[in-house]
Amino acid sequence: MPIYQAPIRDYQFILSELLNVYQQPELQGFDEFDPELIDAVLQGVADFTTDIMLPLNGSGDLEGCRLQDGKVITPKGFSDAYQQYIDNGWATLTCDPEYGGQGLPEVIGVFATEMKTSTNMAFAMYPGLTHGAYAAIHAHGSDSLKAKYLDKLVSGEWTGTMNLTESHAGTDLALLRTKATPLADGEFAISGEKIFISSGDHDLTDNIIHLVLARLPDAPEGVKGISLFVVPKVLINEDGSLGQLNQLKASSLEHKMGIHGNSTCVMNFDGAIGELVGEPHQGLRAMFTMMNQARLGVGLQGLGVSEIAYQNALAYAQDRIQGRALSGVKQAEQAADPILVHGDVRRMLLAQKSFNQGTRALMGQQALWLDESERHSDPLQVKAASKLAALFTPIVKGFVTEQGFKACVDAQQVFGGHGYIHEWGMEQFVRDSRIAMIYEGTNGVQALDLIGRKVLADKGATLKLWSELVKTLIERNIKNQAMKPYIEGLMASAADLEKATGYIVAKAAKNPDLIGAASMAYLQIFGITALAWMWTRTAEKALQCLENGADDSEFYQDKLATAKFFMHYWAVQTTSLVKQIELASSDIVEFEDRAF
Amino acid sequence: MPIYQAPIRDYQFILSELLNVYQQPELQGFDEFDPELIDAVLQGVADFTTDIMLPLNGSGDLEGCRLQDGKVITPKGFSDAYQQYIDNGWATLTCDPEYGGQGLPEVIGVFATEMKTSTNMAFAMYPGLTHGAYAAIHAHGSDSLKAKYLDKLVSGEWTGTMNLTESHAGTDLALLRTKATPLADGEFAISGEKIFISSGDHDLTDNIIHLVLARLPDAPEGVKGISLFVVPKVLINEDGSLGQLNQLKASSLEHKMGIHGNSTCVMNFDGAIGELVGEPHQGLRAMFTMMNQARLGVGLQGLGVSEIAYQNALAYAQDRIQGRALSGVKQAEQAADPILVHGDVRRMLLAQKSFNQGTRALMGQQALWLDESERHSDPLQVKAASKLAALFTPIVKGFVTEQGFKACVDAQQVFGGHGYIHEWGMEQFVRDSRIAMIYEGTNGVQALDLIGRKVLADKGATLKLWSELVKTLIERNIKNQAMKPYIEGLMASAADLEKATGYIVAKAAKNPDLIGAASMAYLQIFGITALAWMWTRTAEKALQCLENGADDSEFYQDKLATAKFFMHYWAVQTTSLVKQIELASSDIVEFEDRAF
Repeated sequence: MPIYQAPIRDYQFILSELLNVYQQPELQGFDEFDPELIDAVLQGVADFTTDIMLPLNGSGDLEGCRLQDGKVITPKGFSDAYQQYIDNGWATLTCDPEYGGQGLPEVIGVFATEMKTSTNMAFAMYPGLTHGAYAAIHAHGSDSLKAKYLDKLVSGEWTGTMNLTESHAGTDLALLRTKATPLADGEFAISGEKIFISSGDHDLTDNIIHLVLARLPDAPEGVKGISLFVVPKVLINEDGSLGQLNQLKASSLEHKMGIHGNSTCVMNFDGAIGELVGEPHQGLRAMFTMMNQARLGVGLQGLGVSEIAYQNALAYAQDRIQGRALSGVKQAEQAADPILVHGDVRRMLLAQKSFNQGTRALMGQQALWLDESERHSDPLQVKAASKLAALFTPIVKGFVTEQGFKACVDAQQVFGGHGYIHEWGMEQFVRDSRIAMIYEGTNGVQALDLIGRKVLADKGATLKLWSELVKTLIERNIKNQAMKPYIEGLMASAADLEKATGYIVAKAAKNPDLIGAASMAYLQIFGITALAWMWTRTAEKALQCLENGADDSEFYQDKLATAKFFMHYWAVQTTSLVKQIELASSDIVEFEDRAF
Repeated sequence: MPIYQAPIRDYQFILSELLNVYQQPELQGFDEFDPELIDAVLQGVADFTTDIMLPLNGSGDLEGCRLQDGKVITPKGFSDAYQQYIDNGWATLTCDPEYGGQGLPEVIGVFATEMKTSTNMAFAMYPGLTHGAYAAIHAHGSDSLKAKYLDKLVSGEWTGTMNLTESHAGTDLALLRTKATPLADGEFAISGEKIFISSGDHDLTDNIIHLVLARLPDAPEGVKGISLFVVPKVLINEDGSLGQLNQLKASSLEHKMGIHGNSTCVMNFDGAIGELVGEPHQGLRAMFTMMNQARLGVGLQGLGVSEIAYQNALAYAQDRIQGRALSGVKQAEQAADPILVHGDVRRMLLAQKSFNQGTRALMGQQALWLDESERHSDPLQVKAASKLAALFTPIVKGFVTEQGFKACVDAQQVFGGHGYIHEWGMEQFVRDSRIAMIYEGTNGVQALDLIGRKVLADKGATLKLWSELVKTLIERNIKNQAMKPYIEGLMASAADLEKATGYIVAKAAKNPDLIGAASMAYLQIFGITALAWMWTRTAEKALQCLENGADDSEFYQDKLATAKFFMHYWAVQTTSLVKQIELASSDIVEFEDRAF
C-alpha cells in the first residue's frame, strides 16, 4: 500500500515564513488563530487522512461503486470513514460560523484539501462537492434556503452536488435543455438528464442536495437563459424532517478511467421539485462566482496526487536495488545500488519535487488572495486581490493539473514494471489525476480563459499588477549575489511571458483564432513563471532564515537547492514555448481542415 | 466503438517515394516483391485488423484474461480471431521461407505491426512475442531446435514468450536466480519464478514455447553467467507430436493498468525440461542480438496506439459541436461549431499528426537499415546500416513511446469528459500505450543506452555517420527557397544536438553520473532531430512530386504544411532541452540524497 507523510513542515514554512499569515491584522478573523491552533488542525487532518482515508484508496478503486436496486453503494469502509469525517468536524473548517462552520481562512483550507486529495481523491470528492453546493447557496440563496440547507451541508450530515453537464452540452452550457416548470407554490418541476455528476448518489448520508442548471419556460436562448435550482434527493418537511423521495434518480454509473470510489452518475430528473437559487436566468453567473474556489479545488487535486506519487516514487527509489551508479559502486554490501543513484531517476524525482513544493507555495498565495478578497479591511486591496485570484485561477487549475498529471506519470515510471501493476498504487494515481485536466473546465478552456478573459479583455491591467510584484522582488534582490541563480531564472521566464503576451496582443485583433492556438503554450509559460516567482520568494526567505541562524538549517539549504534546480530545469522551458507561439500559432490557424 | 482507417496512402508514400524500396537491387530478395504485391499484403492486413481485431479491443479490455483451474482463458473472440489470423498466414510475413515464412523485409513488416497495434495492442502481443521466440531460436538455436520449433512458431500453430524478469531483477538481470540443472540426456531442469510474462499462458494454441533466462550450476556471477533455454509448455515427442505437460504453470495473472486482453503471467518453473539455446553463459548476448527488432516492435506500439487515438480524436473534433470559433460563427446552421474550430483542439491534433507521420517515416527508415544489415550486397553498407540501426534503436523505442503516450493523452483530452469514459475507447489507449514506456527496457534505460553505449562508447563514430547524411540533405537543399522552413528547423535542432553531445562529452569523464542525468533530455533532442530529418526528406520529396505534376497534389501539399508545423512546434523544443542539459544536469548529480 502506498505510504504518505503529510508535508506539515512545508505548510508551516509557507504559512509562517513565506506568507506570514499570522501577522495580518488587516484581514478580518485572522487574529483568531495562531500557529499552535493551526498546527493542531493540520496535524489532525494529517492523522485522519493518513489513518482513515489512505487505507481505503486502493480498495475503493478496485471495488468501485455499484448501482443496486436504484441505489448507489459506495466501496466498503467509505460510509464508516465518512461518519468519522463529519464527527471529527473536518467538513466545517472553512465554513461560515453562522451555520456551524469554524471560519478558518482558505489559506488553511487548501492544505487540508491537499492532504485529503493525496490520500483518497475519490473519497475527498464527496465533501468537496458538498462545499461547492454550500458555497452556491451561501452566496446566492435566499434566507429561507440558507436556513433550510446550510447547517446540514456545513456539518456534512447532507452532501451536495453540481449538475451542469448534459451529454451534448459540456463546455458549451448554452446548449443545455433541462427544463424548470414553475409550480403554483413558487417551486419548480425540474426535468432532464445530467451526466458526469460526481457524488450524484451514494449511501453516505440520508439526503443529497443537488444544485441543478435548467431553463425556465420564458428563458432567453443561450447562457443568458439558464437558472440555478436546489433540488434535494429527499424532500424536506416544514419542520426540517425528511419527507418523501423527490422525482429524481441516478439512472446509471459512468464507467470511468479512475476515481472509482466516487460515484459519477447519470442523473434523471423527472419533474423533481426544486427551488430557485438567486434570480431567474442568472444561474450561470451564480456558478461563475464560485469558480475561483472550485477550480482551486481541482488544482489541488493535481498537486495532492502528485505529492503522494512523489513520496512513493522516492521511497521506492531509496529501497529498490538495481544496477550500479555510473561513477562506481555506492553500496558494496548490497548486490546492487538503490536506483536513486541513477541520474534519470533523480531527474524525475527532482522534477516532481520542485513542481510540488513550488505549486504548494502558489496554492497558499492564491488562497491568501481569495481570503483578502473577502476579508481585507482595505477596499483597494480587496479589489486587487480579487483580480489577482481571478487571473491565477486558470493557472492553478490548468497548469497545475497538466503538470501534476505528468509528475504522476514520472513517479509511476520510477517503479519500472511494478508501476504498471495495481498493487503498488502508482497506476491508480495516474488514472485518478487524469480527470483533473478535464473537469471544471478542460485545460483548453482554462488556457483560453487566461489569455482571452483574464489578460486581453482586462487589457493587461491585472497582469501589470502582478508584474509589478515580480519587478519589486527582482529589484530588491538583484544586487544580492546569493540570489543570482533564482533572479536570473525568474527574469528569463518573466521576459518570455512578456514576449508571448506582446506577440498575442499584436496579432489577436486581426486574427482572433490565433488566441486559441497560442493559449496552451501561454498558460504553461505563465504557470512556470508563477512558480519561478514563488521559488524566488522561497529562496529569499530561506537565505534570510539561514542568515538569522535558524535551527533547521538543512531545511532551508534544501529549499535553495530545489529552487536552483527549478530554475535550471523548469524555468528554461519557457524559451521553447515562446518560439512555439511565435512560429506555430499561425500554422495552426491556417492549416486546412481537410488536411487533418 | 473507435474507428480505424489504415494509413495505406502514407505507407505507399514511404515505401515508393521516400525510401524507394522497389528499386533496391543490392538488397537480397527485394526483387521478389513489387508495389502491387505489397499493396495487396498491406490491404489484407488492413482489412483483417479493422474487421476482426478492432472489434475485440474494447471488449477484450473490459473482460480481461482469467486464470481458471490453472489455465488462462483469453477474452471472448480472441481464440477465433487468432485462428483466422494464422489461417490467413499473417504470422508468416517476415519469417524465413525455409520454415514456411514469406520472406518479406522488415520495411513491410513494420507497417503490418503498426496496424495490428493500432487495432488491438493486447491481441497483437501474442504473435508479437511469438516472433521474438522465433527470432531467438532462428539466430541462436541448433539445427535440431530449429527443426523442432520453427515451423510451428512461423505458422503460429504454437506461440512463444520471453521469460526474463524476476521480481527482484528487472533492468538488472545480473541479479536473476532461476536455475538450470543439467540432466543426463543433455537437457536441463529449469526452476524459478518469472514475472510480467506477456502471453505466458492462454487458450489460443496447444503449445507455448517459453524462452527462459537461467543460471547453470557453474555459472559466473552477474550477466556473464546467464544462459538461454527453450522450455515448452507441452513436451514434444520424437515424432513431433505433443507429449506430456512440462513442469511449469502460470501461477497468477498480474493486475495491470491496461493491455488487459493480453495474459501477463507470473510463471512458475518447477524442474521444467528445457534445452539450451546457443552457448552456455551466453544467454544475455543471445537476447541482445534480438533487441533492435524487439525494441522496434515496442516503438511501433507507441506509434500504433497514437495513430488510432489521433484518428478518433479528429473524428470527434469534426463531429462534436460546442461553442463558436473566436473569429465568429462558422456553421450557422448548427447550434454550435464543431470543436475543430478551436485553436487548442487544432494544436493537439496537429501535434499528434505531425508526430505520427514523421515517426512512421522514421520507422520505415529504421526497418530498412535492419533489412540492409541482413541483406545488402555491400559488406560496408551492411556494417553501416547495422550501426545506424543500433544507434536509432533507443530512439524508436524510448522517444517514440514517450511521445506516443503523450499524444494519446492529448487525443483523450480532445474528447473532454467523454474521454474519461470507457465506452469511447480513448482512456484505454492511454492505459495501453503507457506500458510501452516501461517494458523492453524502460525509457530511462533507452536514454542511457543512446548516450552511453551508442554515442560515447562508440566515440561518436555512428553519430558522425548519421550527421553526414543530415549534412548532405541540408547542403543539397540549402539554396532552394521552397525548402527554407524545413532546412531551418532541421539545422537548428541538429545544432542543438551537436551542442548537447559536446557538453556531455566534455563532462562525462570527470563526472560519469552526469551522463545519466542528461540522458533523457538528450534522447528527446535526438528523437526530435531525427523526425526533423524525416520531415525534411518528406518535404523534399513532396516538392519534387508537385513539380513533376503528381496527380494527388493535395496529399503532397498537406505533407508540406505538416512538415512546416513540425518545425515550428516540435523542432523548437530542442532549444530548452539543451539548456536543461547544460544547467540542470550537475544539479541533479549534486543534489543531496537526504534532501529528496
